[in-house]
Amino acid sequence: MFVYADNAATTKLRPVARERYLKTCEEFFGNPSSLHTAGQRAKEELTRCRESVARILGAEANEIYFTSGGSEGDNQAILSAAHFGAKKGKKKIVSTAIEHHAVLHTLKKLQKEGFEVVLLPVGEEGIVKAEDAEKEIDENTCLVSVMLANNEIGTIQPVEEIGKICRERKVPFHTDAVQAVGHMPVNVKALNCDYLALSAHKFGGPRGVGALYVRRGMPLESLIEGGAQERGKRAGTEDLPAVAAMTAALEEATRDLPAYMKKVSALRDTLIENLSRIPHCALNGDRKRRLCGNVSFCFEGIEGESLLLLLDDEGICASSGSACTSGSLDPSHVLLAIGRVHDVAHGSLRLTLNEENTEEDVAYMSEKIPQVVAYLRGMSPVWRDLNEGRRQFIL
Amino acid sequence: MFVYADNAATTKLRPVARERYLKTCEEFFGNPSSLHTAGQRAKEELTRCRESVARILGAEANEIYFTSGGSEGDNQAILSAAHFGAKKGKKKIVSTAIEHHAVLHTLKKLQKEGFEVVLLPVGEEGIVKAEDAEKEIDENTCLVSVMLANNEIGTIQPVEEIGKICRERKVPFHTDAVQAVGHMPVNVKALNCDYLALSAHKFGGPRGVGALYVRRGMPLESLIEGGAQERGKRAGTEDLPAVAAMTAALEEATRDLPAYMKKVSALRDTLIENLSRIPHCALNGDRKRRLCGNVSFCFEGIEGESLLLLLDDEGICASSGSACTSGSLDPSHVLLAIGRVHDVAHGSLRLTLNEENTEEDVAYMSEKIPQVVAYLRGMSPVWRDLNEGRRQFIL
Repeated sequence: MFVYADNAATTKLRPVARERYLKTCEEFFGNPSSLHTAGQRAKEELTRCRESVARILGAEANEIYFTSGGSEGDNQAILSAAHFGAKKGKKKIVSTAIEHHAVLHTLKKLQKEGFEVVLLPVGEEGIVKAEDAEKEIDENTCLVSVMLANNEIGTIQPVEEIGKICRERKVPFHTDAVQAVGHMPVNVKALNCDYLALSAHKFGGPRGVGALYVRRGMPLESLIEGGAQERGKRAGTEDLPAVAAMTAALEEATRDLPAYMKKVSALRDTLIENLSRIPHCALNGDRKRRLCGNVSFCFEGIEGESLLLLLDDEGICASSGSACTSGSLDPSHVLLAIGRVHDVAHGSLRLTLNEENTEEDVAYMSEKIPQVVAYLRGMSPVWRDLNEGRRQFIL
Repeated sequence: MFVYADNAATTKLRPVARERYLKTCEEFFGNPSSLHTAGQRAKEELTRCRESVARILGAEANEIYFTSGGSEGDNQAILSAAHFGAKKGKKKIVSTAIEHHAVLHTLKKLQKEGFEVVLLPVGEEGIVKAEDAEKEIDENTCLVSVMLANNEIGTIQPVEEIGKICRERKVPFHTDAVQAVGHMPVNVKALNCDYLALSAHKFGGPRGVGALYVRRGMPLESLIEGGAQERGKRAGTEDLPAVAAMTAALEEATRDLPAYMKKVSALRDTLIENLSRIPHCALNGDRKRRLCGNVSFCFEGIEGESLLLLLDDEGICASSGSACTSGSLDPSHVLLAIGRVHDVAHGSLRLTLNEENTEEDVAYMSEKIPQVVAYLRGMSPVWRDLNEGRRQFIL
């Protein structure tokens, strides 16, 4: 059996997106900047895509910028707001300890440029408190950046509330919505955000393409200089086939979100329930306020990497934390932020489901994972120490 | 009849690239950063692509960084070398007046950061002189950037020679090879370059993907922060389907370059010969040292934009200059650099051919273009002034 349960890392391309990619390569092959019919038809198609993406997000078409993906969008939004703020002497940025590295590493770069960065803590449920954000906002704050849903533990942050506070205090607000779009309702007006980044390959669109929402009037600087594409804010020939495929994927993903969320969260809940029976394990992140497809556990006494490799032998594709940091020996900053100690954070497992997963997948994982955990613990000196009382169980 | 003669703006996706894109989406759908088999297979495929691209360019695999396209590569190379130089107090950059805007606008940004930028002139043949570059290089020079082939007039620059001078003087050397790769031999060792940017959609690969060659030991900074992809120099999930498709396109494009160049330059030469018979016109750029597919003319007494639109009505897709600057009212900086006066520069036409073009295409364009030029001139007050001696012919 083969179970792909790593949809937060990347999803398979939806058939509708593949068809749209091919169709666009054939029918709209011109460069949208060219004046001839082939170019103008491509330009019109680009406009249609922009309008559709905007409509789905509750934005205006001219507030949507196509990017090469989520990381680029996060970088561009954060640098733009920060550099604009700095011109007015505002150099404080408020974010959270559980952001994706596309945000955290951009903030690190800004720290080197002299910005003050405050990372809000989260409780053990993995959710930042809006009032903590409010307390940190002062007259020097040029940006607040809070992710909509966490990529490792799936927790949904109070972005609407934080956005409202930022709007009242007139502080630019960015949200990294890469994990959320296509998996929960996302409306830029409801979220009160000024910037929102998304990535196509997290909801069945192609790699290498994403969108950045920038509220009208908010500053935006170019990361890539050159031609006047994307209204002068993102140079380089537009990747229209990918943009069109992303649009098709987004349209399909958001057509009936309640039904999607109901189906996938039922799978998630069964899986959480089944895995919770494993001794000395703990669900990471809030039980309810999490993405419909996210299951994340820590198991005491085992190495997450060994777990992954043995599950892979059983045909189960899973992850320990974020794909973007795999291979790193450091435990996940997200798991540390919710209070897991180093050893426990190393024994993590992330299973991320979407509508392609089935009840059979869940049943299979529910059978195999406890077996593999037990097998690994049988070989683990740490587990022996725990069982024989030389170390204390924490979970 | 339909003739696509705007291949410098963008090419149609090669069937081999389309097949490879689809195959990669199916067979290598994992995230290359994931530890499970699906991820590791994707990672191996990414490595194979990197090795193939490197081999074709005469580079090592770890000198190749995949990017979102030519503009990103140019930006990243130039900013990296400049900022590295600045740390050692070197803030002079030598480039040319005919670079693509991805280079020129990045240099403009650096000027605002306090860099001195010297743009070498070109003669009327549209080629920069290596000795001019040599004269400008001094102990403050942190970068020389000279394109390999011009995007508007197709002229091939003495990059090999300039690269040799730079290597001797230990000055980092970047070449924008976006128009050259797949259309002429490109070997980073022969060119003596430290950085080389290319874009897939100029040789039948997909949009939104390119590569940057960075010679071992040369500085490289990230434009996009986040995950550790591309050895920490380009965050964001790798667009493996596009990378694989680019690789397939590059392999095919470079399989028999001499035959390709022979075939396409024969078409080009016939077209140049036929269009040269139009009165008061001039070929832009050197007759011989130009890309095998580039035909660029200025016609006195007409507006390039009207010419394009009427040719479009006849089924001919052409360009006035670069697609990246179309819609702009300013005449091309390249045509001004080769000495065309404003009025004449406005009457430009670029036809860019590749192996998809046929002798029939050339015959059709050779018939239609003189007719359309004559028609437009018949309606043009400028042409009347010229013919009736109230203005002087320049061409």
